[in-house]
Amino acid sequence: MTFEGMWHDLAPVGRSASSGGYFRQPWTTAESELRAWFTEAALSRGLELETDAMGNQVAWWRPAGTSAGASVGSAAVASAGVVPDERTPGSAAEGSDRHGLPRQGILTGSHLDSVLDGGAYDGPLGVVSALAAVDLMRERGVVPSRPIGVSVFTEEEGSRFGLACLGSRLATGTTTWADARERRDRDGVALPDALASAGLDVGSLEGGGGLVDLSEVGCFVELHVEQGRDLVDRDIAVGVASEIWPHGRYRFDFTGEANHAGTTRMEDRRDPMLTYAMTALAANKQARLAGQRATFGRLEVAPNGTNAVPSRVTAWLDARCSSDEALADLVAAISRQGAERAERDGTGLVVTAESVSGQVAFDPALAARLAAVGGWPVIPTQAGHDAGILSAAGIPSAMLFVRNPTGVSHSPDESAETADCLAGVEALADTLTELAR
Amino acid sequence: MTFEGMWHDLAPVGRSASSGGYFRQPWTTAESELRAWFTEAALSRGLELETDAMGNQVAWWRPAGTSAGASVGSAAVASAGVVPDERTPGSAAEGSDRHGLPRQGILTGSHLDSVLDGGAYDGPLGVVSALAAVDLMRERGVVPSRPIGVSVFTEEEGSRFGLACLGSRLATGTTTWADARERRDRDGVALPDALASAGLDVGSLEGGGGLVDLSEVGCFVELHVEQGRDLVDRDIAVGVASEIWPHGRYRFDFTGEANHAGTTRMEDRRDPMLTYAMTALAANKQARLAGQRATFGRLEVAPNGTNAVPSRVTAWLDARCSSDEALADLVAAISRQGAERAERDGTGLVVTAESVSGQVAFDPALAARLAAVGGWPVIPTQAGHDAGILSAAGIPSAMLFVRNPTGVSHSPDESAETADCLAGVEALADTLTELAR
Repeated sequence: MTFEGMWHDLAPVGRSASSGGYFRQPWTTAESELRAWFTEAALSRGLELETDAMGNQVAWWRPAGTSAGASVGSAAVASAGVVPDERTPGSAAEGSDRHGLPRQGILTGSHLDSVLDGGAYDGPLGVVSALAAVDLMRERGVVPSRPIGVSVFTEEEGSRFGLACLGSRLATGTTTWADARERRDRDGVALPDALASAGLDVGSLEGGGGLVDLSEVGCFVELHVEQGRDLVDRDIAVGVASEIWPHGRYRFDFTGEANHAGTTRMEDRRDPMLTYAMTALAANKQARLAGQRATFGRLEVAPNGTNAVPSRVTAWLDARCSSDEALADLVAAISRQGAERAERDGTGLVVTAESVSGQVAFDPALAARLAAVGGWPVIPTQAGHDAGILSAAGIPSAMLFVRNPTGVSHSPDESAETADCLAGVEALADTLTELAR
Repeated sequence: MTFEGMWHDLAPVGRSASSGGYFRQPWTTAESELRAWFTEAALSRGLELETDAMGNQVAWWRPAGTSAGASVGSAAVASAGVVPDERTPGSAAEGSDRHGLPRQGILTGSHLDSVLDGGAYDGPLGVVSALAAVDLMRERGVVPSRPIGVSVFTEEEGSRFGLACLGSRLATGTTTWADARERRDRDGVALPDALASAGLDVGSLEGGGGLVDLSEVGCFVELHVEQGRDLVDRDIAVGVASEIWPHGRYRFDFTGEANHAGTTRMEDRRDPMLTYAMTALAANKQARLAGQRATFGRLEVAPNGTNAVPSRVTAWLDARCSSDEALADLVAAISRQGAERAERDGTGLVVTAESVSGQVAFDPALAARLAAVGGWPVIPTQAGHDAGILSAAGIPSAMLFVRNPTGVSHSPDESAETADCLAGVEALADTLTELAR
């Protein structure tokens, strides 16, 4: 099955006929179809598949001599000619898996879930490219000296349960099941019920297990469509990530007093919509002036009736900055301006940080080694990824970006040229070949 | 069954355990229960009940001598000592019903549906008081010389299908079934399907019938909880309505471009949330300066994801002014400011008037006659009511207001003192007795 063939198979799954965008929320029918598709793709390639109780999946390619736990010397890696970072795979400091054996596996992949009404490439491009890269390496007769795994982590977008990278957070122990199990989606469905309804084995999570085994993973390489125009400006199809900006999600609960929209005099109101509106404008202005990012893209209004002053407006701020300090300052400034307006409006404001991800500087030696493979530029990103979670959890990680002609993402309009996608597959195959020498 | 007994029976229907407010949207389980309750209340009193295919209900009390179509002379009315308006019931110009007989019936009642998370009194107080007034008149041995009907009109709030007073609009021919049948609720359910799911006979509406017969109605008196503090300020329990302010609902469709909330530079965005936020603040300011009302209480955001710049924000403006011209000016000013900001934001704005109700001046002679019954003040309101629809349709109408200690309405906090409610029942009984002499 070619890259184009796989892409064609995925195209209709979870696609909205009206917008052309994708609704691939975790543990829905669409996402279950994607999991079944990946299962079939892995098994038809003879890969060794593990699916965990969250729906995370890893499919291992184990050529002869790379069977689980078999060790290879660090010499093979050092021979690449690039000074290996002390945490790169096979190096002396790479640690060992649960069996006391070195972490020698190379993991690559991405996610298959989407934001609400998202694009086709964000996530799936990395999964399809990983499978296509394995196919290409086999066609070329490459026999890697270490296992290569293709991974799919669930709820990367956090579009259903509000915490981005939930699958990889649990798999790496960054988030515990005891915390995660309390989460509810917008319809009030608890995470355990969502998993059970998708046929997953919640019991094993409750029992302290049920998560994919990453103990063998020595490094992680995630290919992803670029979500900006850096590569367009540089006129090149592929780039390597240097870092992920610190970012977070903050819930702003504005509370006021419901009342009749007709009979209540303007001066007698305590209208949280006004406090919200001013806060949204302030957030935009603050971020614009400082070269940061601040977005209110999600909102819930109660009771949300045309002829009633709202009693409550809940809005989620997505904020991203170039440093942890700048992020804290930005959120503090927006919160302060909101609180000042709340006092004027007679409303209340409570700000809750739902998730904050500190700066992720990807392993510089690993990034340099990747960049050397194809002469690709090393660029930063403001988007969070599973690679950031694995990196923070101590697994040396890197990312390859594929050019996005418009830079648009999290939108039905997201796109990538087929030629660039195929260049991405080749870049990933070359990278994996290099790392697995 | 006393007023308090009826009130007690209604209290749990559609009540939210979390907010204490009411969700009595038309053609839901809660509203069907209310219809069943009214059916029982009417039949147990020996009233002649008509329920139409919209769920509108009228229960007639026809003492001997007032059987359908029986005419009474205008002398009986003139004897009340108040100069009757030429359109008041029984007067020469009152018109005649479909059988060519005079429109002599006196209708009283209100509605049982609520806004989302609304109060207990808005609507039900008028229905329960009407039934209690009939009981009180019977206890007093009053034998009205003309039929008295107790009415319940559906979807008065427009909380489900967006057009306030939908039931009375159809019953009076103000809106046609051909228009109404195209309406859909927020979940995309078409009105005919909603009616059918509530067990109503949609076929009769499709056949051009199916609506309650108002041809006998000579005048309408609606009792309602006040939705302001006029009576509190005047220190009196009951008042009479003079007029309803012109008001309308306008849908503001703000369109932009969905994009990644992290990677998209602030200056590259076309974010409709910003255009909306500025428009909401402008609406508030315009209305505040002019002593009018403007509210954005309902909002829909797409895709409504935390990490995506929205592609669309749809907001509904509820606007009310003291004159038709002022209303047009207010909406034009808000639309213009929104369009100017849209140009700056690179977004689009389309404003659609979903419903506009012109000024309703209630029949002054009828209002004066009511006011004379109890020495009640005559006051205006900014709230729309079925009485406004019947009045505009040529049926002389009047309203009695019952004091609201806080003025709060369209909120779980709406309230009224029991003593004031009982004063309202007595005021209505006195009024009906006077009109039916």
